[in-house]
Amino acid sequence: MKTRAAVAFEAKQPLEIVELDLEGPKAGEVLVEIMATGICHTDAYTLDGLDSEGIFPSVLGHEGAGVVREVGAGVTSVKPGDHVIPLYTPECGKCKTCLSGKSNLCTAIRATQGKGLMPDGTSRFSYKGQTIYHYMGCSTFSNFTVLPEIAVAKIREDAPFKTSCYIGCGVTTGVGAVTKTAQVQPGDNVVVFGLGGIGLNVIQGAKMAGANVILGIDINPEREEWGKQFGMTHFLNTKGMSREDTIAKIVEITDGGADFSFDATGNTEVMRTALECCHRGWGTSIIIGVAEAGKEISTRPFQLVTGRNWRGTAFGGAKGRTDVPVIVDMYMDGKIKIDPMITHTLTLEEINKGFDLMHAGESIRSVVVY
Amino acid sequence: MKTRAAVAFEAKQPLEIVELDLEGPKAGEVLVEIMATGICHTDAYTLDGLDSEGIFPSVLGHEGAGVVREVGAGVTSVKPGDHVIPLYTPECGKCKTCLSGKSNLCTAIRATQGKGLMPDGTSRFSYKGQTIYHYMGCSTFSNFTVLPEIAVAKIREDAPFKTSCYIGCGVTTGVGAVTKTAQVQPGDNVVVFGLGGIGLNVIQGAKMAGANVILGIDINPEREEWGKQFGMTHFLNTKGMSREDTIAKIVEITDGGADFSFDATGNTEVMRTALECCHRGWGTSIIIGVAEAGKEISTRPFQLVTGRNWRGTAFGGAKGRTDVPVIVDMYMDGKIKIDPMITHTLTLEEINKGFDLMHAGESIRSVVVY
Repeated sequence: MKTRAAVAFEAKQPLEIVELDLEGPKAGEVLVEIMATGICHTDAYTLDGLDSEGIFPSVLGHEGAGVVREVGAGVTSVKPGDHVIPLYTPECGKCKTCLSGKSNLCTAIRATQGKGLMPDGTSRFSYKGQTIYHYMGCSTFSNFTVLPEIAVAKIREDAPFKTSCYIGCGVTTGVGAVTKTAQVQPGDNVVVFGLGGIGLNVIQGAKMAGANVILGIDINPEREEWGKQFGMTHFLNTKGMSREDTIAKIVEITDGGADFSFDATGNTEVMRTALECCHRGWGTSIIIGVAEAGKEISTRPFQLVTGRNWRGTAFGGAKGRTDVPVIVDMYMDGKIKIDPMITHTLTLEEINKGFDLMHAGESIRSVVVY
Repeated sequence: MKTRAAVAFEAKQPLEIVELDLEGPKAGEVLVEIMATGICHTDAYTLDGLDSEGIFPSVLGHEGAGVVREVGAGVTSVKPGDHVIPLYTPECGKCKTCLSGKSNLCTAIRATQGKGLMPDGTSRFSYKGQTIYHYMGCSTFSNFTVLPEIAVAKIREDAPFKTSCYIGCGVTTGVGAVTKTAQVQPGDNVVVFGLGGIGLNVIQGAKMAGANVILGIDINPEREEWGKQFGMTHFLNTKGMSREDTIAKIVEITDGGADFSFDATGNTEVMRTALECCHRGWGTSIIIGVAEAGKEISTRPFQLVTGRNWRGTAFGGAKGRTDVPVIVDMYMDGKIKIDPMITHTLTLEEINKGFDLMHAGESIRSVVVY
């Protein structure tokens, strides 16, 4: 079949809207009509050539929502007509990691996914006979895409595609970091570095979890209003402040330091501050942001010996097929908000504008609606 | 009163055995006759001038066992004749940290302890009218010492002083890191870097906890026999091996990486290896060793984002008054071994020999018996 898609033929070039050839689903795969997709910083990170493992030409996009149109042999957990969210972190339920119950980082299809291929080692996309690669196992910048069955989460049918697609990455990453990875408890003091889309979702996760202080930190004063809209109780603009002064101020606001801090900046210097502002004895800092290639985090070991914990999270620690439908329910029940975060709605033809808005810091989340 | 003590008059000089003046216990304090004391690397670290916060002249020693001889006003939890272990990490039960239940790092007397003083801001030791400072709130290199009531753990009277003194630091630090901080579960795979006294105690803690693989790592081949004696199942001599090769070998032996790794070296490069050899998704690395002043730990944030956890432990996460008596019971019940670790028994006059043996790597634990 044919599908309209935005293709990244090479790094650092605008996406091109073309018609691709798409093979139907093989055994254990499903064909999904993508109805909406968010444009995430990770797509830009790859398109900008910053990911040393980025593969071109490829169909980017990993934050979508759509409808199953066809299933391959042996697929039993979804059927045509089901509404689904593609999962770049699948959940097979059978690998060592899934069976451990300790992590969401399913390894069932990791090797092929990292090579831009389906589990059988081939791609379903091609353009004039040339292979076009999958991206993060999702490729939601295509109107139709093929996914492994274990990489789709079935969701309720009354959830709007335009907003629920954001649950495919940003919402789950931020909310899950709080509820799944950190497991913030009522009364905890939470500090969030970086009030972009992820940071705002951390804030609303912390509010839902009953946090006491929710301190948002950014160097852009305009983000204060955004933070307050989602439950932030305190704001600190650290522009020009030293690490020592920043930590002292945070310790003051949180009465001794953060019970949990979250880095949603990707800046390794900020990650250090996020750790060191944690409460002695038990404070835990969680890295969400993706750092520039080659950058490292550092601290004195004394910070850990005196009880601080340094952790990270991917996809908010959420198990895709199990937890994503629950987050959709949270949204539909009004426990978390998504609609105000969708600042720009675009057509597929306008997708490059979404990247421009992101680079200019003018969007929270741009969504392409097919 | 008078007490015989080994005094550190200045850094980098041998201890001098002299007779000190010792004031009796004030309100909330107890006088303890130290019956035995271990010589720990932390004493050497201070004596060698490596601790920028080291205070001189002082009475070092923090790993003792003895008998309460006198109590100050208001002391109710111990009485003359009680056998006790001094606690450099006290347990007041009332500060924010103790009440949190999340950490053993009681803050009740932290400020004065750090200055070498009792909680009222003065020292009990003097020599010819000159103030001699306390050390880690313990000063067990003195036959008699004064301690805050909250800094002694009452223990059973049938425990021999010569071995149970080691529970005052090394044993609890190593065993507690496994049972309290890490909470190793039966079947977990454990990796221990550095098979000195702390590392051996980590090994026997891991054995007691039912660990599966217990892989010991050292660059001294003679430590293999020591490790096996306490439950080590595998040994790796990493002398000359690159970090990449070391990690690959550990991943092979542990079937994917350590569930828990422990650094008992104090070397920040080893700390990095200890983190990066952990299992993707959930492996936790725990720093026990004290690093050289100014040294920092580093890694790529990707290590944490893919599910590794970086933590630390002080005094094995043990709450002194609550947990130390339990560890004494473990020893008396034969669940852990201490006797073979006491490689040298010295008199107070021979104490400098203990430091020499440690620096030469020829002792596991030297103990001074008064």
